[in-house]
Amino acid sequence: MRIGIAGAGAMGSRFGYMLSEAGQDVTLIDSWSDHVEAIKANGLQIDWNGESRVAPFKIVYPHEVAGTFDLIICFTKAMGLDQMLSSIQSAIGPDTALLCLLNGIGHEETVRKYVPDANFILGTTIWTAGLDGPGRAHLYGSGAVALENMENSESAKRKAYEVAELLDGAGLNASYSDSVRYSIYRKATLNGAVNAMCTILECNLNTFGSTQSSEEIIVGILNEFGDVAAHEGINLDREEVLNYIHSIFSPDSIGEHYPSMYQDLVKNNRITEIDYLNGAIARKGKDYGIPTPFCELVTLLVHAKEEIRGAK
Amino acid sequence: MRIGIAGAGAMGSRFGYMLSEAGQDVTLIDSWSDHVEAIKANGLQIDWNGESRVAPFKIVYPHEVAGTFDLIICFTKAMGLDQMLSSIQSAIGPDTALLCLLNGIGHEETVRKYVPDANFILGTTIWTAGLDGPGRAHLYGSGAVALENMENSESAKRKAYEVAELLDGAGLNASYSDSVRYSIYRKATLNGAVNAMCTILECNLNTFGSTQSSEEIIVGILNEFGDVAAHEGINLDREEVLNYIHSIFSPDSIGEHYPSMYQDLVKNNRITEIDYLNGAIARKGKDYGIPTPFCELVTLLVHAKEEIRGAK
Repeated sequence: MRIGIAGAGAMGSRFGYMLSEAGQDVTLIDSWSDHVEAIKANGLQIDWNGESRVAPFKIVYPHEVAGTFDLIICFTKAMGLDQMLSSIQSAIGPDTALLCLLNGIGHEETVRKYVPDANFILGTTIWTAGLDGPGRAHLYGSGAVALENMENSESAKRKAYEVAELLDGAGLNASYSDSVRYSIYRKATLNGAVNAMCTILECNLNTFGSTQSSEEIIVGILNEFGDVAAHEGINLDREEVLNYIHSIFSPDSIGEHYPSMYQDLVKNNRITEIDYLNGAIARKGKDYGIPTPFCELVTLLVHAKEEIRGAK
Repeated sequence: MRIGIAGAGAMGSRFGYMLSEAGQDVTLIDSWSDHVEAIKANGLQIDWNGESRVAPFKIVYPHEVAGTFDLIICFTKAMGLDQMLSSIQSAIGPDTALLCLLNGIGHEETVRKYVPDANFILGTTIWTAGLDGPGRAHLYGSGAVALENMENSESAKRKAYEVAELLDGAGLNASYSDSVRYSIYRKATLNGAVNAMCTILECNLNTFGSTQSSEEIIVGILNEFGDVAAHEGINLDREEVLNYIHSIFSPDSIGEHYPSMYQDLVKNNRITEIDYLNGAIARKGKDYGIPTPFCELVTLLVHAKEEIRGAK
């Protein structure tokens, strides 16, 4: 099977490597030139659970892709998805399946510009991976993948099953699930209810969760996510999600942790993924006629903070 | 006339001194013991436009007031008004007029617990004053006062006129106006649309006003203030207020200025007056059944920030 990995960062490298080892015809696609040139010259240098490996790899810039893929797996940064798909549009044929494994929500708005829902598969994964520099990845531990078709049809479901089998055959512990979209909303609701607040207030999860104001903020945002999800046929168990959110504040859990959005903006001065959390809810809310003012204001404040800090 | 000045800070000292010089029977009331004891011992030390003056003054702690006042002028901090009025309740007779000159909105909720609307006068002032330490005030320049009755009746209006005349007779340039409540809402809308944002984002007016997000935030908050004011019969000219807000962002205006809320919390680690700006709109919105989500969230975020910083 001819597989394109759109976005050859840490996770793209992992999936690409494992599929390639399983005998699939894998092409990595990325536009970070140091990384692309390093792999073109020396292959991908892998630290596989402590063992050094080198994998020669087909890696191309987006504009270099030729022919169509049977499957494209997206692992770009959220903000880079549109440009990536636009650049590799010629490689998307009428039967090309697209598997989106990005964090956050609202990516379907982008994907739908290039792929019909019949070929569009959503997934979540708990695999991890890291990049140590251009052309160098470390791949430790184990994980799993869950996939679900976007179109509610037998043929779309079959396609999702086939892709799950393909990934599973490469040791990626993949399975079909009819609750992927639910899981994505659940996780995004957690992130939407706390990440932006820790970023705006510059504090860790426990500190935010300990303020008297936090409960009202969290419930307000949870309800906006819930209302938008319900409009898409996904009925969040709000009480369960609220308990889930409460559970992370404990220092015994990840309470001492600064969320990735904080790290992106406050620590590394990078543009955040707010548009794929609260910002996506605000956009969808407008489209659906559902009020989402807390998500709107949080998105505006994070963007203002990005701009004030000159984040890139 | 027997006049009590509830809150003998800089502005209370100015009004008290000028009324006293005009022959009125003035009692200052404050609970800051260093200040009270300094004035009890040595009188109020005044720098009057560069000229040193000493004014012997009746000054008492709230629990020391005796008898009733004909007029009480409130110059406490917003957060201290309730406790002050509660402590001096015995000095409020059935005919005692109360003039509230505090910044912000929502003080009527507090005042109404102690004084009927018929005796309740709202005012604004552009006089300034400063305290140089316990018992020492500097009073420079000129100013003006505008007063309006809260109750819509001829007798209440007459009372407001009388108080205006009294103040005017003391050189305070006071006049009756039927647009005091309008002016208070207009100024509070400006403050509500920018002060909390500069405090949350830790920037000056110009920096906030220059972000791409600012316009949507400002318009959202302006509309919430406008909706709540309209419910109270005050119809803000929203376009004029929006232009007024835009005008302050220029570095030629006060764009380089950090609002007082920023100075309170970020510079001096003090509790802010958010409950008498956006917080008042959120409370009133709930009472009136008017959605005010931007004001709600801004209030919650500022309170969270106060708590995280351990502001006092």
